[in-house]
Amino acid sequence: MSSGQIGLWLIGAKGGVATTVMTGLAAMARGLAPPIGLVTETEALRPLDLIGCDAIVVGGHDIRPGSVVEAAQRMWTESRAIPPELLTAVTADLEAIDARLRPGSVLAAGDAIGALADASILARRETPRQMIERIRDDICRFASDNDLKRVVVVNLASTEPPWTAPIPADYATVAAQLYQPAAASPLPTSSLYAIAAFEADAAYINFTPSTGATPPALDALARERGLPHAGCDGKTGETLLKSVLAPMFAARNLDVMSWVGHNIFGNLDGRILDDPANKAAKVQSKDHLLAALLPTPPQTLVSIEYIESLGDWKTAWDHIHFRGFLGTPMTMQFTWQGCDSILAAPLVIDLVRLVDRARQAGECGQLPWLASFFKSPLGCTEQAFAAQVGLLQTWIATQTISR
Amino acid sequence: MSSGQIGLWLIGAKGGVATTVMTGLAAMARGLAPPIGLVTETEALRPLDLIGCDAIVVGGHDIRPGSVVEAAQRMWTESRAIPPELLTAVTADLEAIDARLRPGSVLAAGDAIGALADASILARRETPRQMIERIRDDICRFASDNDLKRVVVVNLASTEPPWTAPIPADYATVAAQLYQPAAASPLPTSSLYAIAAFEADAAYINFTPSTGATPPALDALARERGLPHAGCDGKTGETLLKSVLAPMFAARNLDVMSWVGHNIFGNLDGRILDDPANKAAKVQSKDHLLAALLPTPPQTLVSIEYIESLGDWKTAWDHIHFRGFLGTPMTMQFTWQGCDSILAAPLVIDLVRLVDRARQAGECGQLPWLASFFKSPLGCTEQAFAAQVGLLQTWIATQTISR
Amino acid sequence: MSSGQIGLWLIGAKGGVATTVMTGLAAMARGLAPPIGLVTETEALRPLDLIGCDAIVVGGHDIRPGSVVEAAQRMWTESRAIPPELLTAVTADLEAIDARLRPGSVLAAGDAIGALADASILARRETPRQMIERIRDDICRFASDNDLKRVVVVNLASTEPPWTAPIPADYATVAAQLYQPAAASPLPTSSLYAIAAFEADAAYINFTPSTGATPPALDALARERGLPHAGCDGKTGETLLKSVLAPMFAARNLDVMSWVGHNIFGNLDGRILDDPANKAAKVQSKDHLLAALLPTPPQTLVSIEYIESLGDWKTAWDHIHFRGFLGTPMTMQFTWQGCDSILAAPLVIDLVRLVDRARQAGECGQLPWLASFFKSPLGCTEQAFAAQVGLLQTWIATQTISR
Amino acid sequence: MSSGQIGLWLIGAKGGVATTVMTGLAAMARGLAPPIGLVTETEALRPLDLIGCDAIVVGGHDIRPGSVVEAAQRMWTESRAIPPELLTAVTADLEAIDARLRPGSVLAAGDAIGALADASILARRETPRQMIERIRDDICRFASDNDLKRVVVVNLASTEPPWTAPIPADYATVAAQLYQPAAASPLPTSSLYAIAAFEADAAYINFTPSTGATPPALDALARERGLPHAGCDGKTGETLLKSVLAPMFAARNLDVMSWVGHNIFGNLDGRILDDPANKAAKVQSKDHLLAALLPTPPQTLVSIEYIESLGDWKTAWDHIHFRGFLGTPMTMQFTWQGCDSILAAPLVIDLVRLVDRARQAGECGQLPWLASFFKSPLGCTEQAFAAQVGLLQTWIATQTISR
Repeated sequence: MSSGQIGLWLIGAKGGVATTVMTGLAAMARGLAPPIGLVTETEALRPLDLIGCDAIVVGGHDIRPGSVVEAAQRMWTESRAIPPELLTAVTADLEAIDARLRPGSVLAAGDAIGALADASILARRETPRQMIERIRDDICRFASDNDLKRVVVVNLASTEPPWTAPIPADYATVAAQLYQPAAASPLPTSSLYAIAAFEADAAYINFTPSTGATPPALDALARERGLPHAGCDGKTGETLLKSVLAPMFAARNLDVMSWVGHNIFGNLDGRILDDPANKAAKVQSKDHLLAALLPTPPQTLVSIEYIESLGDWKTAWDHIHFRGFLGTPMTMQFTWQGCDSILAAPLVIDLVRLVDRARQAGECGQLPWLASFFKSPLGCTEQAFAAQVGLLQTWIATQTISR
Repeated sequence: MSSGQIGLWLIGAKGGVATTVMTGLAAMARGLAPPIGLVTETEALRPLDLIGCDAIVVGGHDIRPGSVVEAAQRMWTESRAIPPELLTAVTADLEAIDARLRPGSVLAAGDAIGALADASILARRETPRQMIERIRDDICRFASDNDLKRVVVVNLASTEPPWTAPIPADYATVAAQLYQPAAASPLPTSSLYAIAAFEADAAYINFTPSTGATPPALDALARERGLPHAGCDGKTGETLLKSVLAPMFAARNLDVMSWVGHNIFGNLDGRILDDPANKAAKVQSKDHLLAALLPTPPQTLVSIEYIESLGDWKTAWDHIHFRGFLGTPMTMQFTWQGCDSILAAPLVIDLVRLVDRARQAGECGQLPWLASFFKSPLGCTEQAFAAQVGLLQTWIATQTISR
Repeated sequence: MSSGQIGLWLIGAKGGVATTVMTGLAAMARGLAPPIGLVTETEALRPLDLIGCDAIVVGGHDIRPGSVVEAAQRMWTESRAIPPELLTAVTADLEAIDARLRPGSVLAAGDAIGALADASILARRETPRQMIERIRDDICRFASDNDLKRVVVVNLASTEPPWTAPIPADYATVAAQLYQPAAASPLPTSSLYAIAAFEADAAYINFTPSTGATPPALDALARERGLPHAGCDGKTGETLLKSVLAPMFAARNLDVMSWVGHNIFGNLDGRILDDPANKAAKVQSKDHLLAALLPTPPQTLVSIEYIESLGDWKTAWDHIHFRGFLGTPMTMQFTWQGCDSILAAPLVIDLVRLVDRARQAGECGQLPWLASFFKSPLGCTEQAFAAQVGLLQTWIATQTISR
Repeated sequence: MSSGQIGLWLIGAKGGVATTVMTGLAAMARGLAPPIGLVTETEALRPLDLIGCDAIVVGGHDIRPGSVVEAAQRMWTESRAIPPELLTAVTADLEAIDARLRPGSVLAAGDAIGALADASILARRETPRQMIERIRDDICRFASDNDLKRVVVVNLASTEPPWTAPIPADYATVAAQLYQPAAASPLPTSSLYAIAAFEADAAYINFTPSTGATPPALDALARERGLPHAGCDGKTGETLLKSVLAPMFAARNLDVMSWVGHNIFGNLDGRILDDPANKAAKVQSKDHLLAALLPTPPQTLVSIEYIESLGDWKTAWDHIHFRGFLGTPMTMQFTWQGCDSILAAPLVIDLVRLVDRARQAGECGQLPWLASFFKSPLGCTEQAFAAQVGLLQTWIATQTISR
């Protein structure tokens, strides 16, 4: 179906997930890595004839100093997660991406994220409207410079604090407020980026719990411009397991009394989440689905703590206390030792291919059939993983029957 | 839909699962226990209008000395799994069941099970045909004495060694061989019981990995008589989790390299499984599904060990070693601390209600839509739990639409 | 050595540990329970000829409504930790203790503890001096009414918030300030109780992380009156394991990079610790010892969370991340599923017997050889459990040689 | 105290532990690795003035084809345990060791080990006496070629099956039988190596559960020649934890009812232990100490299983079921994810330095003060780790006082 190249523009391009996406695309293109972990490479998705992983050109924004090459190498030196020989083999590819990166923005991103930013980023004085136009122009230039057919923008930036100010429901009102100074921004940074993406004629994926394109006003903008978007918050580890295990307890009529999840990890994302404001958004995204999946909501507790020695290894301990027949209390515990970026990166690539495919099929607005990829799926209340996978399979069937 | 009472005839009536079934039915009838753990009491199954739990009269066979009351009390004294006040409250009900029990048979059941049997059981000299008729008559008398509309026989006896002799494919040949002496029995004990059940006009459920009604010859007999049957081997704990978790690894294209499961427990079932011959049947039943659920079969290991202090608490540790993107190895571990009989008993009651419902709906032979209840479902190759639950839901829809 | 009876006066007499102490003493006296978990019943302590468990008469203070009998029964109904038949067998003994209880005090105990108190307790208006005299008189009357040879007071009350006001180093200054109103109390409630104990000629044990007799001024008072005291904070579960495992890592020169401990439980103590102020004292007591035991202090994290369904079952997950030879990172994890009161109660009895024995041997002030019983041992910097047990063994040797 | 170089002669020089010893010594000598995991580099052992790690020259025997360099690289390619850059940096050092290796022997080593051997090894036809002389000459030539002051031989070869034939108690009788053909060898291979070591004037350390120098006849030979020896079976992971944790349960008078340990790993040692005969020796060595450490021996179970994907990562799950006060059952579980060779290698280096130090101090025969290093310490019945560490500290004190 597809020929030519498409663009993948990453917000937060120097983070662990982003650099793993870049390293993985380059390694697969060079034949150095099999496509393990890519949903789009399973038998079930073959009929979709998705764009090849080697047809994806990467660029992006970031607010931090340092190069993509250095960031990628930390996946070895701090986390032992990507073998050094692989990183060496793709260094030239990463350097090429480095040359395409552009300075991002911390306008309305909160203190914890601001503390990460380069001085030159902090020195910018832009209204939201100015920021959007700068970002939009960067994306457009990326598309034209690289002769790209289409672009998908993915938000991989650090989690923002929850945005508590009300957001107008219609886009026109929002648009008018974008001319106010930064301090009166009607939207958080992640949403300004989403507007920029739409204005640059790019699809948008929010892989974080930040606000992004979630507000109805932004969904309206996307639909108006005929662009699809998806989110929120990639479901990679502990929450994935919740969405797999909780339906079993429900199906068996076992009464889950409490579900406790403790998460520890040591990457940059962890340092940001150590800030209580930023953590609140993440915990909410990890916690709410149990109430949706179980007939009687259990007592729940989710903690996320920064433990430096773990690097990118997100280790979770979950303790599930449930009652069975005759009221007998029983326990399931699991520990998950997963490398966060290694789990997330292939899902980002999957989403880019699928959202781009949906765009080619003429879909716009939210894509609820991508629910299985997200902790807080847009346009979909289904939280059970198997049922969410069923939504994807149904969509695949509609696509392949119609051709 | 249902009025009047049905019979539940348990093979292995003095075991932990059987006495928990009895205790639970009595406790629920007296309003002392909510129906936690009963799939048939979830919202999704309400439209089936199943027979009430209080309309089930229990009897059964066993080979061991001692009373049902004593056996039930061990769920408190050895396992702390059923509160003593509950056991006290249902003592009269259990005594009534005791009066309905009949001596079973160890004909062709292997040495480990024979060692459990009462001397009077071992002293019996019967051909398979004679044993079947005795068992059949016991079941018929149970039905008539208690004025039961229908009877369901459930095999809860200790796991037999795998039956290695070939079993003729047509029932007529099998039937002729039943007149040979016990040493030349064409079938193991569990299958002789199944024939007796069918001859007594009872549906049959094999909750164990023993042979039961699995051979095509016996399925033919059931269909000939218009009787449904289901099996094998109730899926209660570690294997349930395998059927829930493995599909997730497959859906996410994660490469499971090895899956190790160690099970320890201390009930009678555990003592029997300490015999290598009997254990072989169980391990096979717990292990085979991973190859069916994962695209590349991993190295697997299942152990089941008898640890006396645990009583009925089946504790499992599973270690799942998988590779993700770029070949990075990761690990999931879980421990499951479940009370075996407490998990199994409500499923037995569920199966009795559902198989009886299927019989009323005119179904006979294997019931593949009951796959979610079994480790080795008859007539169904689907091993993913969510898909198996889907089969049940589909069947429910067909039943309720037709009315 | 001992004849006659001694008194055990419990502050917090209606809590889980206290009622388990009472239940246990009564059950052992009636021959219904073996002395499992009592250090003082091991072979090594036999030569001390300690006072018999059946020679200990129990009374105490509490601030809450309800009876000891009801509180003890919650160890069955909420926690399944003490069999109901045992509780029934000792009901008369518990009722006798109930008759000896006296109303306690929440003077200077903080808001979370105050919220537990009975209205009649909250209505009292006492200066610290008046409170001490009332408490002292209660203890003296307990001793005379029951013809007790000696009394040991044990603090088992809920953990207070850390006391941040400076405490004068000499007792005379403290004593003068006790006449001020409650709001200007120079000491927290736990310390006022300790003074009352000393004034009542009783030894004192602080089984909590509250201040108790820790301040030098109170130690001086104890020594002046010839009374021994010990503390702080009984070492029952997760912290015990830290003091056992950390010395191994140190001895093997393994570099512990991080040690994370998550604790969940659901008893009243847990509800109090849900208050951040009260939790701070506990976390500090659980956390500080790793820095003392390891050559390079690791990053540490301790959480304690209230999960109602667990009742008295304190479940801890510890994740220990360490580097070995050539810098290779490795992991140890443990989960501890212990019943808090069941673990603590025998240690309380042990301490009563040992502190009373020390008093008979003429010891006064802090007893550093009891370090193995405490998270924050008074008068002892040794935190390694095996070395602490060595201190006890050495003391036993001095006691038995001298006789 | 020491100048000049000493020799370390490894039996099983191409195994994971041996190549990690070589890699580690070379890396430390080049300043590329800190001495983490070396007991001899802790503060407590500084006064011993041990020989420097850079003064140890390595050689050895092996029966397998392939080079040390290749074997060392598997610690990266199969196990991700030693970083590839470190292996590259020491390649020249490993090649130099390769040049010093000599062909070993499988005389009387059992079938599983024989299956690993190179054809040239299997083709040898030697009597035990001839084998000893060949091995002895190899060691002597190593010493003279490298101008070594003393040599320590360490057995790191795969675990032999238990040796069931009786071994004469006096060495003269043994010596006479060495002239018989291989099939009538009076001793297993490991013991023949030990004799060769003693005849080559080398101290001997048995880091495996094989027989080695354990028989009294061989101890007599060592003492006659003034040589020290130590063993058996390095205590690196799960068994180390048993020797640390069991004393805690004993000290607290908690009644351990069962202790189950499941071990999985995938290195060559694991493949050999997959043979039931070889496994028997290992399980016995891992299991016996609990009976020695606990007042009432619990039911125990130890399994060791070969799971290829784990490589050198020995993962253990232990489940400890114990009763506390009032008979309440409780549970501790731990998982240990340790890299076997990484844990073992520094202990080998420690033992070489300490045994050589003892030899300089004039000690010969068994060295019971090294008990903390071994699962089955020779000459010492103490199994509690802390007490074993105390034996080492006491010895250090005697050595440093005397100088």
